Amino acid sequence: MRIAIDAMGGDHGPAMTVAGALLAAKEWNDAHIVLVGDEALITPHLPAGGAPSNVTIHHASDVIAGDDEPVRAVRRKKDASMVVCGRLIREGAADAMISAGNTGALMATGLLIVGRIDGIERPALAPMLPTMDGSGFLALDLGANMDSTEHNLLQYAIMGSVYRNKVHGISKPRVGLLNVGTEAGKGNELTKAAFPLLEQAPIHFVGNVEARDLLHGSCDVLVCDGFAGNILLKAMEGTAGAVFKALKTEFTRSFISKLAAAILKPGLTAFKQKMDYTEHGAAPLLGIDGLVLKCHGSSDSNAFKNAVRQARIAHTSGLVGAISSETSRKRDG
Amino acid sequence: MRIAIDAMGGDHGPAMTVAGALLAAKEWNDAHIVLVGDEALITPHLPAGGAPSNVTIHHASDVIAGDDEPVRAVRRKKDASMVVCGRLIREGAADAMISAGNTGALMATGLLIVGRIDGIERPALAPMLPTMDGSGFLALDLGANMDSTEHNLLQYAIMGSVYRNKVHGISKPRVGLLNVGTEAGKGNELTKAAFPLLEQAPIHFVGNVEARDLLHGSCDVLVCDGFAGNILLKAMEGTAGAVFKALKTEFTRSFISKLAAAILKPGLTAFKQKMDYTEHGAAPLLGIDGLVLKCHGSSDSNAFKNAVRQARIAHTSGLVGAISSETSRKRDG
Repeated sequence: MRIAIDAMGGDHGPAMTVAGALLAAKEWNDAHIVLVGDEALITPHLPAGGAPSNVTIHHASDVIAGDDEPVRAVRRKKDASMVVCGRLIREGAADAMISAGNTGALMATGLLIVGRIDGIERPALAPMLPTMDGSGFLALDLGANMDSTEHNLLQYAIMGSVYRNKVHGISKPRVGLLNVGTEAGKGNELTKAAFPLLEQAPIHFVGNVEARDLLHGSCDVLVCDGFAGNILLKAMEGTAGAVFKALKTEFTRSFISKLAAAILKPGLTAFKQKMDYTEHGAAPLLGIDGLVLKCHGSSDSNAFKNAVRQARIAHTSGLVGAISSETSRKRDG
Repeated sequence: MRIAIDAMGGDHGPAMTVAGALLAAKEWNDAHIVLVGDEALITPHLPAGGAPSNVTIHHASDVIAGDDEPVRAVRRKKDASMVVCGRLIREGAADAMISAGNTGALMATGLLIVGRIDGIERPALAPMLPTMDGSGFLALDLGANMDSTEHNLLQYAIMGSVYRNKVHGISKPRVGLLNVGTEAGKGNELTKAAFPLLEQAPIHFVGNVEARDLLHGSCDVLVCDGFAGNILLKAMEGTAGAVFKALKTEFTRSFISKLAAAILKPGLTAFKQKMDYTEHGAAPLLGIDGLVLKCHGSSDSNAFKNAVRQARIAHTSGLVGAISSETSRKRDG
């Protein structure tokens, strides 16, 4: 299989993307990595003896910046590394693409360059969020669409369930609907309309779930509109960050508190990492007619290697075809 | 002024409500507390020598339970302590009411028994949420209405601003709109439509605020629809709870970690209390034509006393009249 990596994307640029590609190429012989970007900036990061046989460069002269207006940039910068990755998928020259670049532009690339799966109204961004036991849950949509209909939520639910099944091997993923209470009649107009659709969908629907129970692993897939999902993610992130910051203040208050903190530190550091959702792999853009994976901007080489792992599994398992057939099954039924 | 306390409401019933009323009556001579509820259950908690002159009992034979369906219960249980409190306000026999009972029923009491301020479409529940520095912010709506229009959000903004000004003495409360990014064009259809209305409102609008910045005190009043507000609150609550639980596990892992924990405990306990939003006083139901304050179910006598303090300030400052004139000023302008 051929995996295109947007070599220019992410906070660290080619230094990390190329290092990640090399790690992945060494680990998986069956994966051919195409580094897409400025050849002059990529080459210095390759080994002195030249790239391994399953790593090639596809030159692209332009780059989409973090502050570029997404749709406009994707339409105009036809030779941007991210856009070229999308084109490689559409033309059948790549099976998957990985980028740590501008999230909005990546969604626009998926939508405008790669294209949607037939019948999917809105693709969804689906990162893993942390749980206390480290297993995590897939949340979608987390920012691709600010306004959703109940039919969008139904498709998110099916796509998320298929992903967890195919890529993570969960036989009956528990799908929950983000809501203000667990009872069936709770919620706003959107969640009230979505509830009966999810009950009839070909998924294991476990009903409404509350934001406060998510960290305890109340579901494997969380369905929500992009606005509520963003509020959820940032509230979790902000609260965890604030608490850890306050801990640090307490820990450094005096000599004796520093001693005490040193004793507790290993366990707390492990827990903090578990809570860091950026450690939980790349987020797929589901509903696109091809594999598009979003890495966090701060990704290191290991994160890119892990994204290649995800792409391999998703490709081998036939994820995109399964999403297409499961969502059309629902439509035809 | 006369303040009606729903003596039957809350997890601890008359034991705590009566104790709180006695504390308040002792502290403020100008406050007359009316304990509304079952006389036979209230009397045992009064001092042996009888109640002080500024505490009286208003007998009410019925009670609204925690699992009662709110609107139905308020309509049918005409002699429930909470409903009678509402009727005392409507009839001018009380200036404010305080209850720790069923939140939905209290909102229904406000709406159906006390009534809305002329021109207010939707009253809003407005608790204080914590910030790292302990000052907190008022968030509304937090659960009175699951679906809101941009005009509802505008009224929430004005009501919240007036409350912070009148009751907390903040001369120019910073009002923020809960959103997915700080830039002006961000958000879903609702927040995009609300933004220009808030810009033109007679408030100090500081623009969009993100969930992750709230704990750092980015605003004094947070405007949001009840669904998003609930997700926010429960995500903050759930994450803080999960982190503190994980800390506890680390702290009790071994003898030496217990020792270390003992050193750090005082500072952490103080911080935990600061993060506990149930410590931040009673939540007003704003937009009701009278003062209705919701205490947390687990409130102790001190929390009820503090609610009386809030009611006194709100009454003295002319809160309800100010909300009425500020919101109608906006309408007329």
